[in-house]
Amino acid sequence: MHKIIEDLNWRYATKQFDVSKKISSSDIEIIKESLRLTASSYGLQPNHFLIVENVSLREQLVPASYGQKQVLDASHLIVICAYNDLTDKHVDEYVENIISTRESNPDQVKNYGNFMKKTFSEMSSEDKLIWASKQAYIALGQLLHTCATLRIDSTPMEGFIPERYSEILSLKDKHLTPILVCPIGYRHKEDSTQHLAKVRKDQIDLFDTIK
Amino acid sequence: MHKIIEDLNWRYATKQFDVSKKISSSDIEIIKESLRLTASSYGLQPNHFLIVENVSLREQLVPASYGQKQVLDASHLIVICAYNDLTDKHVDEYVENIISTRESNPDQVKNYGNFMKKTFSEMSSEDKLIWASKQAYIALGQLLHTCATLRIDSTPMEGFIPERYSEILSLKDKHLTPILVCPIGYRHKEDSTQHLAKVRKDQIDLFDTIK
Repeated sequence: MHKIIEDLNWRYATKQFDVSKKISSSDIEIIKESLRLTASSYGLQPNHFLIVENVSLREQLVPASYGQKQVLDASHLIVICAYNDLTDKHVDEYVENIISTRESNPDQVKNYGNFMKKTFSEMSSEDKLIWASKQAYIALGQLLHTCATLRIDSTPMEGFIPERYSEILSLKDKHLTPILVCPIGYRHKEDSTQHLAKVRKDQIDLFDTIK
Repeated sequence: MHKIIEDLNWRYATKQFDVSKKISSSDIEIIKESLRLTASSYGLQPNHFLIVENVSLREQLVPASYGQKQVLDASHLIVICAYNDLTDKHVDEYVENIISTRESNPDQVKNYGNFMKKTFSEMSSEDKLIWASKQAYIALGQLLHTCATLRIDSTPMEGFIPERYSEILSLKDKHLTPILVCPIGYRHKEDSTQHLAKVRKDQIDLFDTIK
């Protein structure tokens, strides 16, 4: 079996973390860099990542996560946020980044920026947030894969109360909406779910190959 | 540099594929298994994957992709779809799968199924499709990572006309909505974009660590 498949089979939604085990700072750096390198539509990166280590905040986040204690017990808690709104300022910053990183033709890149601005100007605020939220899920897919490769456990979560997270983490001031929560760390040896067989559809129910 | 970061830096949105290079069937199997193992909310897997090899269909998909020729030139074309609707039948099939895979207590799993059914019954059709679409983006994140590890090139695309894809691939009959398109294969040596520096925000603009 290829190592990728071994890694992904090793992964499971961890129910109980070992509080005593902490992710090394070098692995955290790999995880951050992996998130930074995540693809996004247009390359705009309309997401922001909180890495919450503070215990008192994480205690408050447990009831905001329907009592899921992984939020407190894991080594680190990652909260993937989306920009509340996509503004011309975000596009301008991106355009500047392309020009300075690639020494590109400024007029050409600005035309690309104007195309993005036009696209977003035709979308409602709600649709822009949905679009930015979807990009957060790409980051989650990359995060889960990266963690599995590093043999770091994870629990991807949609099940939390965004309004409570916003209050506890002061996200309104930052113009961010929390989209996904992912505690990461190391499974507790008594977490019995690690021994359960993985439930997935068969390939025949998931794929159509059109020759 | 860790191999994960090397792989992710190697990756780029490929503009031109080498038509003569095909992905081996063993690598396609790894990619399919990686997609099969992708996490999804509740574990429901509300997605379906088309692997389009047929040249005539792919020629028709080029104009439906705003002329992006990667759709035709790449070794394989993956179309990630979402279920048009989430029905009780999907939940029942999932419940049966859990019971048979894990030899779980049927009543307990059925209670979990009823909880899911109740959740979906309170969502509009539009919201269910958005939810299922988001899961497709997790699969995309996993796909891009897996391909990079295998040194297979990829071009994630939101930019296509879903209605045209639906018609060309007869997706309505299958109750599927195309969400994401991803040609995969090998970069052409003359694709100049491979030499451009990767544009990403700095870590300081992406992460807040709360100690």
